[in-house]
Amino acid sequence: MGRVAIVAAGQTAFGAHPFAGVKELFAAALAEMAASADRGWDPALLDGAYLASLSCGQGMQLGNFAPALVDYAGLPPVPAVHVENACASGGFALLQAVQAVASGQARCALAAGVEKMRDVSGERGRYWLGISGDTEYERMAGLTFAGVFGLMGARLLADGAMTRSDLADVAVKNHRFGSMNPKAMRRREISVQQVLEAPVVAAPLTAYDCCPTSDGAAAVLVVAEELVGTFTDEPVWVVGWGAASDSLALHSRGEITRLRAAGRAAERAYAMAGLGPADIDLAEVHDCFTVAELVACRELGFGGGGPVVNASGGLLAKGHPIGATGVAQAVELFAQLRGQAQEPRRQVEGAAAGLAFNMGGSGASATVHILQKGGR
Amino acid sequence: MGRVAIVAAGQTAFGAHPFAGVKELFAAALAEMAASADRGWDPALLDGAYLASLSCGQGMQLGNFAPALVDYAGLPPVPAVHVENACASGGFALLQAVQAVASGQARCALAAGVEKMRDVSGERGRYWLGISGDTEYERMAGLTFAGVFGLMGARLLADGAMTRSDLADVAVKNHRFGSMNPKAMRRREISVQQVLEAPVVAAPLTAYDCCPTSDGAAAVLVVAEELVGTFTDEPVWVVGWGAASDSLALHSRGEITRLRAAGRAAERAYAMAGLGPADIDLAEVHDCFTVAELVACRELGFGGGGPVVNASGGLLAKGHPIGATGVAQAVELFAQLRGQAQEPRRQVEGAAAGLAFNMGGSGASATVHILQKGGR
Repeated sequence: MGRVAIVAAGQTAFGAHPFAGVKELFAAALAEMAASADRGWDPALLDGAYLASLSCGQGMQLGNFAPALVDYAGLPPVPAVHVENACASGGFALLQAVQAVASGQARCALAAGVEKMRDVSGERGRYWLGISGDTEYERMAGLTFAGVFGLMGARLLADGAMTRSDLADVAVKNHRFGSMNPKAMRRREISVQQVLEAPVVAAPLTAYDCCPTSDGAAAVLVVAEELVGTFTDEPVWVVGWGAASDSLALHSRGEITRLRAAGRAAERAYAMAGLGPADIDLAEVHDCFTVAELVACRELGFGGGGPVVNASGGLLAKGHPIGATGVAQAVELFAQLRGQAQEPRRQVEGAAAGLAFNMGGSGASATVHILQKGGR
Repeated sequence: MGRVAIVAAGQTAFGAHPFAGVKELFAAALAEMAASADRGWDPALLDGAYLASLSCGQGMQLGNFAPALVDYAGLPPVPAVHVENACASGGFALLQAVQAVASGQARCALAAGVEKMRDVSGERGRYWLGISGDTEYERMAGLTFAGVFGLMGARLLADGAMTRSDLADVAVKNHRFGSMNPKAMRRREISVQQVLEAPVVAAPLTAYDCCPTSDGAAAVLVVAEELVGTFTDEPVWVVGWGAASDSLALHSRGEITRLRAAGRAAERAYAMAGLGPADIDLAEVHDCFTVAELVACRELGFGGGGPVVNASGGLLAKGHPIGATGVAQAVELFAQLRGQAQEPRRQVEGAAAGLAFNMGGSGASATVHILQKGGR
């Protein structure tokens, strides 16, 4: 397998974009991605596109999503594939692009994700999200995603495996990072007290333990080693990756306080990279709920003194436009590893290796990518 | 790249399955696939699954489709990816599986597709399908897929490029093949007169020029050369593949009587296989409408005396459960190239090479796979 690098990455701000549709959001992320390529980029080089979205193709009334976006953005008529794995759609689109390049089937592949969630009816939005959980036993019984992660949290608190303030600390940390990220949706710091006193969504989780619904898009360009110099002298290498799946329903799993797919995916990624958890300087960890970040960090092997987690603000503060999320994690790592996380307080100094963990449902599918900085 | 083979393939009958949901249809196709592996199959060998569906994840209220199906069928927790490219979803799922194995990223990958279309409301069914066309300029103006292909047909007839009976002959041929295929949905022969006198759907196309809506599932097992002997001494090799995209809307294209994505995908597949159109003995060609088969055959380079086309009955008679269609084309070629197309009148004698062409929308995306028989 050849070496694989990310040479350009961009995203829209996450939040409410009432005047932009999915095509416009995609084009905006693509433009920022193009601007980030130190020597520019020639779309004629592109030979594959992997596009992630949950709602597109259906509720957004935009079917045939992948060729539609490629065509709208004026890209060449390359093979374009719509990848949908619930909230891990973006991570799996990135995985497909990375694998296509690693295997030599593509030299220059686009991975992008886009979602519109704000200006659709609440009922529709809940529907798209809700059906990504187990339908027969969870959703039909009224269990939402907040409910699923609330159950996980309640069990962990009852077991003494973590405290309520451990959860609140995650919300506080990620909102602090979000306050420094111009692309973040929630840009205000919050206190532990605010988290604890916010309205309960699904005990023990309050509103600040739960990520917001967002519009947004993200795009990264994945290329073979031979093409890296065409774009930049400062690529970010994708040195390891892995993916796995698990049962959708909590009751189908041996333990409801584990996210086994995360561990399985990470194991493969670490082995491929020849790195371990202690080598990771910063990580973007799928924090749809505070408890998810804590549980995932355990599965990823991050103990005390581990990496900086969710310096972007994470899903909790940066936002969670489903299909874009997994790709945006790579956008953040690309900037951080190149020392370009605009706001100095947010930049993780001297970061050399980063990890992105994206999951779908309550851990039914997972991707892990390990990125490393380095010259050509 | 390593050699890639299909070693097992199965499908449900296409038609109405009022008592089976998508999970049950998937499991049934998987069981037939397993039964087709001459030496059986051990699911523990599986290391990736690519699952195609248009409606799943949304209208069918089954989100997180890929891990949900893998889990339901009792397969190991492998990376499972939901691929959606409208009516080409199955072809793209197969492409991802083939590429994963060719590149060495997987040794044993499942490509499967499933769709339930019959026992959902007509409005919902039309909606899922309709949004796979161009929304802003075609669908909102009332143009259906039958309308799009009707326009293509009308233009071709006006240009003298084909006659009305050329179209009818396709319907008659495919229904004749369908009458011999126990898996086909329409199993009655029809006459040219019946085609011409059937209710007009979108002039010049009548009901028999249009494929039915169907339930069904299909699955194939794609493995690396080193594993072939574990399953069979009679594999079918995937010797070439290609994919491409195009504008969704007819008005965005230079000519409305061409399916450029088909030609682009075929060019790559032929080049990789080192074969040309004259080497193909039988082809499964996406015939959602009679005119589509004729136009596609031109793009694929099939002139007079070309291959036997749609010996399965094609979409017109075998049926068209969207996500399953592209995979089922490979199921047909697998049986034909192994001399196992049950009904002797349907078996293409001595067939050594077959081609499958699957498209999404009115040609917005396309895949071509070339399969060849041969020993280990």
